[in-house]
Amino acid sequence: MKPSSIVTLLTDFGLDDPYVGVMKGAMLARFPDARLVDLTHAIPPQHVEAAGFWLERSYRWFPPGTVHLVVVDPGVGSARDAVVLPFQDHLFVGPHNGVFERLLALAPSTTAYRIDAAHLGFTALSATFHGRDLFGPVAASLASGQLDPRAVGPSITVRGGAGFGVLGVGGDRVEGRVVVIDHFGNLISNIQATDLPRDRTLRVSIAGRAVPLIRTYADVAPGECAALFGSFGTLEVSARDAHAALLLGAESGAPIVIEVA
Amino acid sequence: MKPSSIVTLLTDFGLDDPYVGVMKGAMLARFPDARLVDLTHAIPPQHVEAAGFWLERSYRWFPPGTVHLVVVDPGVGSARDAVVLPFQDHLFVGPHNGVFERLLALAPSTTAYRIDAAHLGFTALSATFHGRDLFGPVAASLASGQLDPRAVGPSITVRGGAGFGVLGVGGDRVEGRVVVIDHFGNLISNIQATDLPRDRTLRVSIAGRAVPLIRTYADVAPGECAALFGSFGTLEVSARDAHAALLLGAESGAPIVIEVA
Amino acid sequence: MKPSSIVTLLTDFGLDDPYVGVMKGAMLARFPDARLVDLTHAIPPQHVEAAGFWLERSYRWFPPGTVHLVVVDPGVGSARDAVVLPFQDHLFVGPHNGVFERLLALAPSTTAYRIDAAHLGFTALSATFHGRDLFGPVAASLASGQLDPRAVGPSITVRGGAGFGVLGVGGDRVEGRVVVIDHFGNLISNIQATDLPRDRTLRVSIAGRAVPLIRTYADVAPGECAALFGSFGTLEVSARDAHAALLLGAESGAPIVIEVA
Repeated sequence: MKPSSIVTLLTDFGLDDPYVGVMKGAMLARFPDARLVDLTHAIPPQHVEAAGFWLERSYRWFPPGTVHLVVVDPGVGSARDAVVLPFQDHLFVGPHNGVFERLLALAPSTTAYRIDAAHLGFTALSATFHGRDLFGPVAASLASGQLDPRAVGPSITVRGGAGFGVLGVGGDRVEGRVVVIDHFGNLISNIQATDLPRDRTLRVSIAGRAVPLIRTYADVAPGECAALFGSFGTLEVSARDAHAALLLGAESGAPIVIEVA
Repeated sequence: MKPSSIVTLLTDFGLDDPYVGVMKGAMLARFPDARLVDLTHAIPPQHVEAAGFWLERSYRWFPPGTVHLVVVDPGVGSARDAVVLPFQDHLFVGPHNGVFERLLALAPSTTAYRIDAAHLGFTALSATFHGRDLFGPVAASLASGQLDPRAVGPSITVRGGAGFGVLGVGGDRVEGRVVVIDHFGNLISNIQATDLPRDRTLRVSIAGRAVPLIRTYADVAPGECAALFGSFGTLEVSARDAHAALLLGAESGAPIVIEVA
Repeated sequence: MKPSSIVTLLTDFGLDDPYVGVMKGAMLARFPDARLVDLTHAIPPQHVEAAGFWLERSYRWFPPGTVHLVVVDPGVGSARDAVVLPFQDHLFVGPHNGVFERLLALAPSTTAYRIDAAHLGFTALSATFHGRDLFGPVAASLASGQLDPRAVGPSITVRGGAGFGVLGVGGDRVEGRVVVIDHFGNLISNIQATDLPRDRTLRVSIAGRAVPLIRTYADVAPGECAALFGSFGTLEVSARDAHAALLLGAESGAPIVIEVA
């Protein structure tokens, strides 16, 4: 895999403090020509599932050879593994705590490499900031091409888990749930178009309330709620020119049911 | 126009989700050497006027040859035009929904190019994210110099509208209004210094309350409100070391009146 | 000092408005190859102490030759000096208003250079935005290597002040206080490990409430508060998987006392 020199960053650090900036400093100290692109740093603190959802939906928009650094790491300082995962011409770096589970749903068993910090010369890790002290520098070295993924430590086999977590796929009824609520108030679910029967009339409900299934926002009046397949490929419940989550009073985790009419 | 390789980004996407990052991925896939500079992503959702205000005030601080990408796009998925607008050695890319109106107030009629997505090979647009699927990649290709603005589609003539929207300019009374409230609580208006009579003593009021007209914050005591011409060239009402919008209870749209004493 | 071409940015501008982006435009106009890294723009408005704390804790993670631009500038438009401060193979640029005080605690007296704006050709400064009109362009020119720090204006001697402000260091009792509260709710103090007696059992209390002193988050149960030396080297009071500041009801400035048991 030829590196693109791009590293994406996905964390729960927020932007109020210099944590992201300092991690970038440690990365640029290793690889001054790195192109650092923030995916988001607003993952709710330690919300591994939201990080994993966005990671899986986002990586494909970057060129092959991109390194994706994920630091949502509630277990920092404990014995959880740190890994490098090669996947579809991209490299993923982060704690092995479930953040890659949704990605692996696409390839249930694959080879990753457990980062051996001492072997790589990282001997002075802080107890609480491995993004700066380990993951960031490793990602930068991978992006520079100077470090081979297979050289970070022993290979391990990693497996995906429950995948997208959709229940009852394939029959006349699909049950999913809201995984994240975005800045616009869209309720983004784990239901993909391929989970649904084709050429059938479908009824969608969220938290028990029916909403029409449309193609684009312009298909409903301003302020109206509707379901559509969003730009990241999963079913979203949105309100035209308004905030669906507030209008519906729905939260992350809310059930979404699709039935054949 | 020789491209500077810089692309500025102005959206209402927020930074909570990876939307900006993914758009940058799609841009870097087209032009890996693009220099991407965030203007802001905190335009209130679908607030075309605030986007247009900041765009017009901001672009001049970038080198000639810069591409300015604006994605505040309530009409995404409907029939609104997507355009490339060459203007004063800069290129502007975005939906033709009024976001360029304030810019065009400076040049009431000019030539733009309507982006013909199919002609350019963009055949798989999502219904809701043209920043990633069209505008971003077009901006990147323009910044790389590989795409000529005239090659994006047919030329059209675009005209500015009401300009800065100041009423009664030129007499003894100028009426404007607050266009945006910034992070510091400054109430930024649409009144420019050139709208006002010179060498006269002026009285300023906001929402019916008189405030002194000063040159710099240091001219008033901490906590005091005053009007001054801000660093972006329009009249602002500010409070020294305090939040003028909260102190005055004033909102976006509040009237500002200037009269000759 | 060989420039690294990196410029870090630390301001109180927030990200809601295009102020940071426009400042970057003015910098790229001077030095198109600058690598601009945001430390944070969320310093509370005009909170010079928080800016100075993070500056001193952050700069060392960047390569030698980095320029650090700080614009937290309540005195803009008044007579406060603008300076360039060479320090430990890094360059610091900003208003001389106390923001460098914590840095200088490490080197109580050193040489800085007062920026002579007129001499450098900056003749059209706005009254309120010297980040864009002076500091940013000077930082960019320094990062490019085209401007020597000694050429910005006359040399002056600058001195640190009270340093880290810890009281009673060295005895059986150390008193410090909370300097910043971070995004995770960690209460970060001005007490460094070197302030404390070694090999003694220590008791820590914050705002009168005792908390255990631990090595890493995993040493306490979820939701429990504890003190530990954080990744930036000072004592923090944190709660595992929770928000310590909310749990304790403690604010910036809260006293932290450490006593030998």
